[in-house]
Amino acid sequence: VRLADLGEFELIARLTQGLDVRPDVVLGVGDDAALLDLRPDALLVATCDAQVEDRHFLRGVATPEDIGHKALAVNLSDIAAMGAEPLWALVSLVVPPALPVAELDGLYSGLRALARRYGVAVVGGNVAATSGPLVVDVTVLGKVPRGAALTRSGGRPGDRLLVTGTLGAAAAGLLAVRDPAAVGGLPPAVLARVREALVRPEPRVAEGRALASTGDVTALLDISDGLAADLGHLCAASGTGAVVEAESLPVDDATRAVAAALGRDPLPLALGGGEDYQLLCAVRPEGVERVRTAVAQVGGSATPIGYLTDATEGMRLRHRDGTLEALAPVGWDHLRA
Amino acid sequence: VRLADLGEFELIARLTQGLDVRPDVVLGVGDDAALLDLRPDALLVATCDAQVEDRHFLRGVATPEDIGHKALAVNLSDIAAMGAEPLWALVSLVVPPALPVAELDGLYSGLRALARRYGVAVVGGNVAATSGPLVVDVTVLGKVPRGAALTRSGGRPGDRLLVTGTLGAAAAGLLAVRDPAAVGGLPPAVLARVREALVRPEPRVAEGRALASTGDVTALLDISDGLAADLGHLCAASGTGAVVEAESLPVDDATRAVAAALGRDPLPLALGGGEDYQLLCAVRPEGVERVRTAVAQVGGSATPIGYLTDATEGMRLRHRDGTLEALAPVGWDHLRA
Repeated sequence: VRLADLGEFELIARLTQGLDVRPDVVLGVGDDAALLDLRPDALLVATCDAQVEDRHFLRGVATPEDIGHKALAVNLSDIAAMGAEPLWALVSLVVPPALPVAELDGLYSGLRALARRYGVAVVGGNVAATSGPLVVDVTVLGKVPRGAALTRSGGRPGDRLLVTGTLGAAAAGLLAVRDPAAVGGLPPAVLARVREALVRPEPRVAEGRALASTGDVTALLDISDGLAADLGHLCAASGTGAVVEAESLPVDDATRAVAAALGRDPLPLALGGGEDYQLLCAVRPEGVERVRTAVAQVGGSATPIGYLTDATEGMRLRHRDGTLEALAPVGWDHLRA
Repeated sequence: VRLADLGEFELIARLTQGLDVRPDVVLGVGDDAALLDLRPDALLVATCDAQVEDRHFLRGVATPEDIGHKALAVNLSDIAAMGAEPLWALVSLVVPPALPVAELDGLYSGLRALARRYGVAVVGGNVAATSGPLVVDVTVLGKVPRGAALTRSGGRPGDRLLVTGTLGAAAAGLLAVRDPAAVGGLPPAVLARVREALVRPEPRVAEGRALASTGDVTALLDISDGLAADLGHLCAASGTGAVVEAESLPVDDATRAVAAALGRDPLPLALGGGEDYQLLCAVRPEGVERVRTAVAQVGGSATPIGYLTDATEGMRLRHRDGTLEALAPVGWDHLRA
């Protein structure tokens, strides 16, 4: 069945049937707008992010389920980056009319599976046609207790920098996809790991809330453009510089394997690869152990990778031998790429 | 300047500089997500709608300001259709990198001018690149007092149907654009009126809130797909049929003029043309005059056009001579069109 045969309203009915009923969703999909019940002790958190075919995903690499997963995941990552709890999502699809409906079914299925895991209700959306590539634009709304949100701007010189999980796997996944012959000899588990990081990133929602709960985190954001670029955003917003210790970076093991197979240095993948969707935070020095424990308690990890400095010192990378070099806040630019 | 030269972050800074500061916008554009203060007596209302180049707007016909205006207007119309008050907008742009930045400046300028008029704060958004047409996807959030929202589903047999403003002008605008030679002899004011209806629809926000304030409205939605199609949605949600009186329809005067110049009957334009962005409501019979007065007090109009019936009677059109014919709930389908 092509989309053009199914029609807009049948498609919406098909995609949204059986959405969960929840008390905070007073009215969900099907009217002009959703009606949502936000409790009075909270602030509303809102973010949106679009995934575009051939830019953010490749139809031959990512399955429809992967595409739906990632379209929601990148938004949940932004909610996590506020230390907030995601609640509701609106899904806007811009689709080529000739697209098989089964692909949208798969996309929505991947999206809804992730939504269910994080307690997110899909409460609305839109479908429009295009002569161009598929676009999946998702808005996620969430809540955070008043005064508890973590932004990019609270970091101060002396604060430690910590990053959740590992870095560079999505970038390694992209390299592996582009040169399958060169990585063909690697263990399947390695290839599966970097592919998964590329097409099905896991948003660090539990880690974000754990970080917020400590009271020790001064600034927080998610790593979507690459560690160096996003650290640049944190420094610009906080009015600081930073030192990153190269040997402390939690470079993903599978990333090291892929980089070795390709004869590349894994460090640039961890610094500038982008799409890690890990969290980067600044932490008061005396709170580092509390923060690491809090993140461990939700099943994650947080690795110290450096510290904030005065703004005049800029961003620098410290190598194993103690030498310092300037670290350019450069990563992925969606318009230039 | 091409977008590809400017880059994502400079573009965002350029588009969002000087956004209004408001107490309910705790944190706006520039972090991972916006932080918004919804007062406890209200429900949150959320909707999203995308405008796609060559589908919803034609770059040669609509100016960049028009495109930005309409992208927000269609969402404000959905908020109006709940009887709610719009508060916040997120603007997601999917742009060809070669697009001149001046066009996006114009687009954002048109969007922000309309936002200012309706007290809407732009609190976030996203920019992504595409190899396809320009897409402007807007999410609008608003509020409505608990219990006061008007949905599509409350209509009952015997309720009167009223529509705000006039019908058919956007459809006439599209016909005029497609056949400029045939309408060249019409007065400039007529052509300006139907063009304006097509490219710069006015959302009926004040009318929606006035309708909600009466307590007499049982069902409400906006007319985006066409009167017959949207009445079909109202009837399906309310479990009713309907009779529409052809001679009561407030066909736009400029629409009559354009239809006459093209040798067409204006009635189908009013019934099925789509994109009117007027409000259609069902009203308790004893409340009709109160409703008309309430809408008049905010500078609008509401015209009785028929009534709801039992569902078994279906949707029918009554002609001047008293004959009834079946009225198909057919209008614009974004995927089939």
